Amino acid sequence: MARQTLSQLLENMGSGSAVALARLMTLVEREGREVGRILEAIAPQLGHAFTIGVTGPPGAGKSSLVDGLTTLMRAAHKTVGVVAIDPSSPFSGGALLGDRIRMGQHYLDKGVFIRSMATRGSHGGLARATLDVMKLLDAFRCDYVLVETVGVGQTELDVMRATDTVIVTLVPEAGDSVQVMKAGLMEIADIFVVNKADRDGAQRMMTDLSLMLELKYSNRPAGQTAAPQWKIPVLATQAINNVGLPELFEALESHHQFLADGGELERRRTTRRQEELLARVEYAVRRRLTDQLELDPALARLFEEVGAGRLDPHSASEQVLRSEFLKNGGEL
Amino acid sequence: MARQTLSQLLENMGSGSAVALARLMTLVEREGREVGRILEAIAPQLGHAFTIGVTGPPGAGKSSLVDGLTTLMRAAHKTVGVVAIDPSSPFSGGALLGDRIRMGQHYLDKGVFIRSMATRGSHGGLARATLDVMKLLDAFRCDYVLVETVGVGQTELDVMRATDTVIVTLVPEAGDSVQVMKAGLMEIADIFVVNKADRDGAQRMMTDLSLMLELKYSNRPAGQTAAPQWKIPVLATQAINNVGLPELFEALESHHQFLADGGELERRRTTRRQEELLARVEYAVRRRLTDQLELDPALARLFEEVGAGRLDPHSASEQVLRSEFLKNGGEL
Repeated sequence: MARQTLSQLLENMGSGSAVALARLMTLVEREGREVGRILEAIAPQLGHAFTIGVTGPPGAGKSSLVDGLTTLMRAAHKTVGVVAIDPSSPFSGGALLGDRIRMGQHYLDKGVFIRSMATRGSHGGLARATLDVMKLLDAFRCDYVLVETVGVGQTELDVMRATDTVIVTLVPEAGDSVQVMKAGLMEIADIFVVNKADRDGAQRMMTDLSLMLELKYSNRPAGQTAAPQWKIPVLATQAINNVGLPELFEALESHHQFLADGGELERRRTTRRQEELLARVEYAVRRRLTDQLELDPALARLFEEVGAGRLDPHSASEQVLRSEFLKNGGEL
Repeated sequence: MARQTLSQLLENMGSGSAVALARLMTLVEREGREVGRILEAIAPQLGHAFTIGVTGPPGAGKSSLVDGLTTLMRAAHKTVGVVAIDPSSPFSGGALLGDRIRMGQHYLDKGVFIRSMATRGSHGGLARATLDVMKLLDAFRCDYVLVETVGVGQTELDVMRATDTVIVTLVPEAGDSVQVMKAGLMEIADIFVVNKADRDGAQRMMTDLSLMLELKYSNRPAGQTAAPQWKIPVLATQAINNVGLPELFEALESHHQFLADGGELERRRTTRRQEELLARVEYAVRRRLTDQLELDPALARLFEEVGAGRLDPHSASEQVLRSEFLKNGGEL
């Protein structure tokens, strides 16, 4: 893409063009060489949006929850960006379509921008692209950016860690309370939601979660209790019947306020930006090496030796770091 | 640790000391500076073991399956290494203990070595440590190395990709057949097992899986069908009653034979070793940068600028790569 066209796109997005925004999203999703220039250009505009992650097992009603929250946010005259991370299996088209159709009422609303991330990139590609898409929505002046993920793989955890507030959504099925512990959801939740709360076992589930949280608080080292602590709420909702959503919206606002008051919001964002730098260096190094592989016979030989098992990967990695391979690469 | 002690440990492991093996595992799990020397030392001994990954949702009976396979492998006079990746939640101690106790019959058997990976490392730490532990078991001359993981997060996928054969274990509960697609298990399975096959819905589940596999085969580009293809079997087991396990063991042997005959085993292992090199370079770069941060004021300033949001992470990563930061680091 010519530099001029990219500048034009950025300018158009700046003037509120959703078409330009969508095209820029496609560019960052493809991880092409324009990504650097896009991120550099939007950097001064970042930090406005309050970002919210919604995660939980499949079938927990996350899409309905996001849908309902979007309606409430729009009623409060706020603009909303929604990013949904969908599994890329070619078999799952049907279910996904169903989810998206439910968001249909918002498609005609210019104050809402919805993006499904369809590609399952390797080596953190999906997480990286999702973070960049969230930044574009932030630069587009969305007041809220909601990102919805399924499960708790590394990609999902990486994305959740990049949000200001994480909502973990569960359903009152038996066994879920055990799974929440195992999956490490406990560590990332700022708000718990028991959705489909009209089903059997909802009360039991909420009690279980509250007890686990008590246990978590009581295990905290005494020294840490001096700072004000966020008390993770456990909320009951029936997203498709619009029950409990105003309370959830309130809890979100409270958490945002809590983060802002104590300076925790800025601390989290600082850590996040520095972590992103490390991740980008890692990725650039990988990319540079794989590019160099075709140009540099010495590096190609090293890879061959490792591939054949004649040189162990650890020793080879030290050779790479001592060498000029990383420096010789062209512009990334 | 003094160099001599490490050499001694390596020598003792070479002479069959399980105590030395366990201590070396602890060292690689801690990711200390000895890891390089350990991997270098064992490199010439690698490639003997046939590695098998067992994955699936929580409660699918993976531990019983691994237990039963171990018994069969021992009956065939083979030595076995077992690596179990357990979630690190402090709350899940009870369930884990239960799983491990079931393997109890093998604890006194010198032909079986069992290791639970308890730490959930960040930045691929758990996957890296698991791969290294598998290598130690290989160097210890285990004929089979079984590695058991829960779910399909990035760590689990990384570990499964590092094995020769992947068994995906499911149970005949409704909804599982949808989840298998979503979770991307389809892409990694060499053998499907429907465990607890005496339960309702087992036959339905097996039919579903077979149909999905048919669909997968029929979607293959025509050009790819020239090479011999592995036909992924769908097997029924009741691991705790020892039903179907001999057939599973046979399927494992067939797959191993298939891989060896077509040269696919060596191709997979070659790719794997080269991928490991890339991952190790990435990790070494991250570690070098974080170490340098305390020593180099210019790098510290760069991180500060990024943290404060005054410099975007992408531009900063280009500065890092153009700089001497990566070269200045001491020995890793």
